[in-house]
Amino acid sequence: MVNPVEFTRDLIRCPSVTPADAGALDVLEQKLTALGFTCTRLPFSEPGTPDVDNLYARLGTDAPNFCFAGHTDVVPVGAAADWSVDPFAGEVNDGWLTGRGAADMKGAIAAFVAAVSRLLDDGEVKGSISFLITGDEEGPAINGTIKMLQWLEDNGEKLDYCLVGEPTNPTTLGEMAKIGRRGSLNTRLVVKGTQGHVAYPHLADNPIPRLIEILHRLTGKKLDDGNDHFQPSNLEVVTIDVGNEASNVIPAEAEARFNIRFNNEQSIDGLKDWIRSVCDAVGGEVELEMKASGDAFLTPPGVLSDLITGAVEKVTGIRPELSTTGGTSDARFIKDYCPVSEFGLVSQTMHKVDERVRVEDIEQLADIYTEILNRFFRNQG
Amino acid sequence: MVNPVEFTRDLIRCPSVTPADAGALDVLEQKLTALGFTCTRLPFSEPGTPDVDNLYARLGTDAPNFCFAGHTDVVPVGAAADWSVDPFAGEVNDGWLTGRGAADMKGAIAAFVAAVSRLLDDGEVKGSISFLITGDEEGPAINGTIKMLQWLEDNGEKLDYCLVGEPTNPTTLGEMAKIGRRGSLNTRLVVKGTQGHVAYPHLADNPIPRLIEILHRLTGKKLDDGNDHFQPSNLEVVTIDVGNEASNVIPAEAEARFNIRFNNEQSIDGLKDWIRSVCDAVGGEVELEMKASGDAFLTPPGVLSDLITGAVEKVTGIRPELSTTGGTSDARFIKDYCPVSEFGLVSQTMHKVDERVRVEDIEQLADIYTEILNRFFRNQG
Repeated sequence: MVNPVEFTRDLIRCPSVTPADAGALDVLEQKLTALGFTCTRLPFSEPGTPDVDNLYARLGTDAPNFCFAGHTDVVPVGAAADWSVDPFAGEVNDGWLTGRGAADMKGAIAAFVAAVSRLLDDGEVKGSISFLITGDEEGPAINGTIKMLQWLEDNGEKLDYCLVGEPTNPTTLGEMAKIGRRGSLNTRLVVKGTQGHVAYPHLADNPIPRLIEILHRLTGKKLDDGNDHFQPSNLEVVTIDVGNEASNVIPAEAEARFNIRFNNEQSIDGLKDWIRSVCDAVGGEVELEMKASGDAFLTPPGVLSDLITGAVEKVTGIRPELSTTGGTSDARFIKDYCPVSEFGLVSQTMHKVDERVRVEDIEQLADIYTEILNRFFRNQG
Repeated sequence: MVNPVEFTRDLIRCPSVTPADAGALDVLEQKLTALGFTCTRLPFSEPGTPDVDNLYARLGTDAPNFCFAGHTDVVPVGAAADWSVDPFAGEVNDGWLTGRGAADMKGAIAAFVAAVSRLLDDGEVKGSISFLITGDEEGPAINGTIKMLQWLEDNGEKLDYCLVGEPTNPTTLGEMAKIGRRGSLNTRLVVKGTQGHVAYPHLADNPIPRLIEILHRLTGKKLDDGNDHFQPSNLEVVTIDVGNEASNVIPAEAEARFNIRFNNEQSIDGLKDWIRSVCDAVGGEVELEMKASGDAFLTPPGVLSDLITGAVEKVTGIRPELSTTGGTSDARFIKDYCPVSEFGLVSQTMHKVDERVRVEDIEQLADIYTEILNRFFRNQG
């Protein structure tokens, strides 16, 4: 039997700030090997990006293959002096485990390992359980999940369902699972003009009115009304910068950046076309850089969400909301391979100083994951 | 007889960078005293601003009082190493006099003094000639012309016509006189909101869409069509700055600055009311700082412009355009006391490295000013 709290502490003690692994995958691989998993390390590299180590582990060879996905890398500690404890000591005080990665998401990895060990204590599993663990979720995410999924496909490894252990609960364990995520598109727009003196505007070409016109049209458009599972798509202008100190000078260019969080009514290409068409309609010379960090996706309520909802409600007494809110996760890549949903710890302190989780929450999460595996493999609920 | 080129050189040799006088007013006062003027030095001071010396000189006591207005202060030399000569040596080479203040506007002062000396050589003047010379035109303009005009009024000194010697010709002596100037209003607008994450816009309040809406309304409004003497009033947004580095953060505030150059169809108060009403209509919290650097004014074509036009055409063969274009000058203060117009040297090199004027232009300007005085006092043309 694996103790999920102890194992979370073991993982936290590896200071695996992206792209460093610091032994975290070794600690996990040893535990999984002891449980009977076949472990495959999948290091990837690419010019201009840091080398990253990853781990795929599978127990069993039969279908269905139920996969747990996550990451052992963590974000930097930030202002180290502001932490009340050593962020990599894994200290437990007053029922709280404090440390970088406690919530996001070493606690969930440990809870799932504990759940598997309990399942195996009750006998063999008909089917497979696998771990898809990257060391590059908090970084550029280039040498991690995307390449692992390609490797799985190239090697005939099929996932049937995937549960991602990201912290999904805003304040209380059990209140929220994620069955989809919005997409995100970042745009940098530079409008070009010709510098000059404000007293002689006919000799200059002020780019700012055209930028204002473009942004006015972009922000004035309702993209959609949302749908049963998603809130409406939304555009936020995050900055406009000209940097002109002189009150009598017309500037030569003006820059804006905006982000669109979009639902599954939109597509990346459709949004890019729309942005380009607005710029074209206003006219003049512009520079456009558009970068999507993931398409929107939805795993419609079904087998996977029923498993999660039933298990969470049984253990916590709370029926989780099936949400598509919040940021992005590696589930945006996995959705192209199999149904994927997310349930993990409480997100309140993730990425912050004194990141922490209730010891009780880790134990309850192990219970929830155990319940999910039992229901999936033995139809026991 | 005063040699206008020699006297320009004497004035340039006083490095009178605002607010320093460096002896420039003494040099002028000596020359005017020798010509029979009664000179009054008018030093002014005010807390928080530099002390400034000024000079009012009058020849005669009868009306009409024809006044020449200008300034002996100059802007800094800028990159001193880039000058081809000492900027305060008053060097003459190849027909050009190079030095700080040559064009703006020691050359014009010297030309007017020379014109007066020639007029007096032909006998007494019925009426008065006066000089209103400040040492604070290139600076804050607080302890200069405004306070001198108030002093004149308080002491029963009346001006009947005023000619300002600012450089008014873009490239060739004779092509342009100024019979008015547009006003200028600078505004700094800060729109307030509430910071937050782009993925949770309902928890934030993005100030940028409101700023865009306000600027869209301001730039979309045609203020007027101009009139016979003025081009249309014009608003230029000179900068927008948010300074938000993070693509996933909604900023707490957004700032824009814009300048309005306006004609005599507008008033400062009317423009301020309009800007406030647009902000109010869009709603939300804003900070508004509005600062006018002068109202628009026009001295309609008449006695003064006829004098200038006739004299310029006789001397140069060019009929000057009566313009209201360009920046502001101290004429914006004088217009409240008497008809005022401007004619001086070529402005091309003013405020630049190697500021310079043609020796021939100074001599022609002295001829033009002589012609103006002759026509005014003796009806000779």
